[in-house]
Amino acid sequence: MELDFSNIKVLGFDADDTLWVNETYFREAEEKFATLLENFETKNKIDQELFKMEMDNLELYGYGIKGFMLSMIESAMELSNNTISSETITEILKLGKEMITKPVELLEGVEEVLGKLADKYRLIVLTKGDLLDQERKLERSGLIKYFHHVEVLSDKKEANYKHLLDHLEINTNEFLMIGNSLKSDVLPILNIGARAVHVPFHTTWAHEQVDLEEQFNNHLTINTLSDILKYLK
Amino acid sequence: MELDFSNIKVLGFDADDTLWVNETYFREAEEKFATLLENFETKNKIDQELFKMEMDNLELYGYGIKGFMLSMIESAMELSNNTISSETITEILKLGKEMITKPVELLEGVEEVLGKLADKYRLIVLTKGDLLDQERKLERSGLIKYFHHVEVLSDKKEANYKHLLDHLEINTNEFLMIGNSLKSDVLPILNIGARAVHVPFHTTWAHEQVDLEEQFNNHLTINTLSDILKYLK
Repeated sequence: MELDFSNIKVLGFDADDTLWVNETYFREAEEKFATLLENFETKNKIDQELFKMEMDNLELYGYGIKGFMLSMIESAMELSNNTISSETITEILKLGKEMITKPVELLEGVEEVLGKLADKYRLIVLTKGDLLDQERKLERSGLIKYFHHVEVLSDKKEANYKHLLDHLEINTNEFLMIGNSLKSDVLPILNIGARAVHVPFHTTWAHEQVDLEEQFNNHLTINTLSDILKYLK
Repeated sequence: MELDFSNIKVLGFDADDTLWVNETYFREAEEKFATLLENFETKNKIDQELFKMEMDNLELYGYGIKGFMLSMIESAMELSNNTISSETITEILKLGKEMITKPVELLEGVEEVLGKLADKYRLIVLTKGDLLDQERKLERSGLIKYFHHVEVLSDKKEANYKHLLDHLEINTNEFLMIGNSLKSDVLPILNIGARAVHVPFHTTWAHEQVDLEEQFNNHLTINTLSDILKYLK
């Protein structure tokens, strides 16, 4: 990989599944949801229907746990042909509330990497999802001291990034985005002429997956966040 | 009122119930919710329980329609002693989705006021609530062209305002906040040494109400937004 990062001044970090564990908790909640509904449908069908419901509701609800809770409730009614009990809906609400209050589990090496990079670069967090959830996680993470700016975006499309870099007066050629999602953290960044480093997380939500042929070549993929220190001195 | 606004450079506008109708839609939804549950409890008791549920969940869910939907569902189960039907829960979801997709209804004089003030002042929107909801409303409102900056805050406490003014490099003595809520738009602003104009909306959510003795004197109250033009030339 021949990327030259010598003129990079600002590093943008994705948060969920880049700085801390997130997707794992959604997968666990889906498992529990499937168990709650196991008398009605197969696990496979339940997973499919919930995902379809989330996609149908995405434009209305956006990303985040509250929308996920509402989609679980709506799916439960559909999958049970409206025979779901109040007790099961109570369990779904409990499941969602537990997700909201879960402690933040940092990924390996995050604190060390941010500590080292904060001296030389301006670090910002660019995350999408629910404003309150993300602020809360950042506060609980203890990482806020490393960041000059935190931006919660309603989505991570090219226009969102462009608008934000303009607003923060950051040159695209001085900006490097680091994140786990090719779709949200890498492709739109490359499309606006900035650079990106992909740090895959072991689990990727179906909605964040992209076909291989859609991938671009001019980004760097690393195994763990600590590897970034080899490229950014 | 002897307030001198001659050194004001930046005007902060609240959005819900200052630029457009919002609270009215929540009141209408509460009416419909009470009708859905009329076989279980009196309207008064239903209103009380829903409000209590919203307050209990506020720290978890924050402000916005999705949290309101989840609180309606949870209240419905409690008020019906877990005998609520799937059909009623479907109706509650429908109610919430209708709120999300409602067209934006501007308050009287808003467009004219913003048009006149945008030439002389830097206008920003400071709203709290759900990020996606607020962005969507702003887009639908057609007002975005008047604003230099839009900030959706998870809450409107002194610390939120301080942080934002710092970040935008706005001097408190050059900042005037305009909004319908004494609790969210006026008191915290006065407490950080900036100034505020109160434009009451006919409906105020119980959570936004403050006792009269808590009110400060050094702010201006106007009847409709257009009145601000008498003070800001």
